[in-house]
Amino acid sequence: MDKNYYEVLAHDVNRALVDGLDPGKGTLEEAIFYALSVPGKRLRPVLFLTFLNAYGIEAGDYMDIACAIEYIHTYSLIHDDHPSMDNDDFRRGMPTVHKKYNDAIALLAGDTLLTMAFERIARAPLPPQKTVNILKILTSGIGIEGMAGGQALDLEFSGDKELILSIHRMKTAELIKASLLCAAEAADLSPEEMESLGEAAIAIGIAFQMADDLLDMYGDEEEVGKKLHKDQQNQSPNSVIFFGREYIETEVNRYYGRTMEILERLGITFPPFLDLMKKMVFRTK
Amino acid sequence: MDKNYYEVLAHDVNRALVDGLDPGKGTLEEAIFYALSVPGKRLRPVLFLTFLNAYGIEAGDYMDIACAIEYIHTYSLIHDDHPSMDNDDFRRGMPTVHKKYNDAIALLAGDTLLTMAFERIARAPLPPQKTVNILKILTSGIGIEGMAGGQALDLEFSGDKELILSIHRMKTAELIKASLLCAAEAADLSPEEMESLGEAAIAIGIAFQMADDLLDMYGDEEEVGKKLHKDQQNQSPNSVIFFGREYIETEVNRYYGRTMEILERLGITFPPFLDLMKKMVFRTK
Repeated sequence: MDKNYYEVLAHDVNRALVDGLDPGKGTLEEAIFYALSVPGKRLRPVLFLTFLNAYGIEAGDYMDIACAIEYIHTYSLIHDDHPSMDNDDFRRGMPTVHKKYNDAIALLAGDTLLTMAFERIARAPLPPQKTVNILKILTSGIGIEGMAGGQALDLEFSGDKELILSIHRMKTAELIKASLLCAAEAADLSPEEMESLGEAAIAIGIAFQMADDLLDMYGDEEEVGKKLHKDQQNQSPNSVIFFGREYIETEVNRYYGRTMEILERLGITFPPFLDLMKKMVFRTK
Repeated sequence: MDKNYYEVLAHDVNRALVDGLDPGKGTLEEAIFYALSVPGKRLRPVLFLTFLNAYGIEAGDYMDIACAIEYIHTYSLIHDDHPSMDNDDFRRGMPTVHKKYNDAIALLAGDTLLTMAFERIARAPLPPQKTVNILKILTSGIGIEGMAGGQALDLEFSGDKELILSIHRMKTAELIKASLLCAAEAADLSPEEMESLGEAAIAIGIAFQMADDLLDMYGDEEEVGKKLHKDQQNQSPNSVIFFGREYIETEVNRYYGRTMEILERLGITFPPFLDLMKKMVFRTK
């Protein structure tokens, strides 16, 4: 598929993300604007919008949801990078929010982005029942059984390799799943289809994180835009460290295969969507 | 009014707050359980429920909203107390979350409580349009124009007394306003009535924070349950420091009077509600 397809979507998302924000209004708003302006792949909103396109749904009314998803992802990055968590100085090749501003502003910027996500969901011009269903999907993906719970497991990780898959699922795959299920809700998929799509999303999400683990070990720092080769010294739950390169490369293929199988069963054949699945797991950045 | 009335409401809230939480499940859930179990006045949910009672609405279906409001308040306290913010060791007479656990868990516990607030809103058994309206009210009260924005102004406060009223309004009064407007939404008040009620809520909220400023200067530490007399050394925007005791005591009375005037105009005469307004501003803890 031509790269341009995703670039157009990401460009639309980038514009919508900062719509109405005024960086001159104060440090908090400036820090939020900064965090949203640092170049990013916008993977999750692009995934969401590509799925909508697969079902012939125009982004328009759903752009607020796409932005909410990226706000949530951005909040999670700011707090992950915070000195009380991973204490990272760079993200996407730029200083992290707490380095550029300070720890307090970074804490507040994350809090505010999470709030802004729900504010945009509330204001999305959708039928109220759709809004409520999307709210349910997203909150259950990022709470104690999802992203935040996975982050807590990651924090306490002390080498128990049995936990790595749960951490990858909760910390990474659940938000990817929620992004796709929000699109499925928009496309009126049946509960059974939602269930299957959720399985595919978890599979591709785990493979995506495994690909990230491979990148940390063997990737090019400049191309990836963040400090690599640090999982080992940080005792992070990097699957490659605990299971070996060959095994994880096989697993990535297996999860990818399972995803494609489910998508085929669901009759999802939209080439840009299938291509995006591939890009998520076979990547150099 | 008999004290028992509020105790019954607060007791119901306390039970509902931890409903479904399992502190044995992991450190994050334990920390959240701890934060919710530390005794608190539950002022905001009690305010919300008392207003519902004034309109003859049973708490039942709205208990999720009451809990969401307290989750939001609790998240804000955990992050306010965090070492990257105020670095407080005690809250309500007990160790703060980061003292009891650690800085990372405190950060995550706050994030998760904010998420849980929206999860409960999503799951409240209400007509979807009511849910969406409540979501709008709450998110606009706690975002960049409300609580979080006020927290940022507070952070950067450097003695400009003109800002104190804005900080009090945003950081404290906006969540109180949102709590009342959620109840007004439940009670189907008209937009004009909502507008007036919002003004009353801001007035009582500012008076409530001024009462807090008075307590910090002249209150009894043991009775209040947190470290007092620290606003001066922290250069906090304490109105009493900048405007004097007598002036602020007069202001508290003036804001209280304005609140009662608006409530009278709205025909709100429910004694427990009016009594609660009084308790909020004339207090010793």
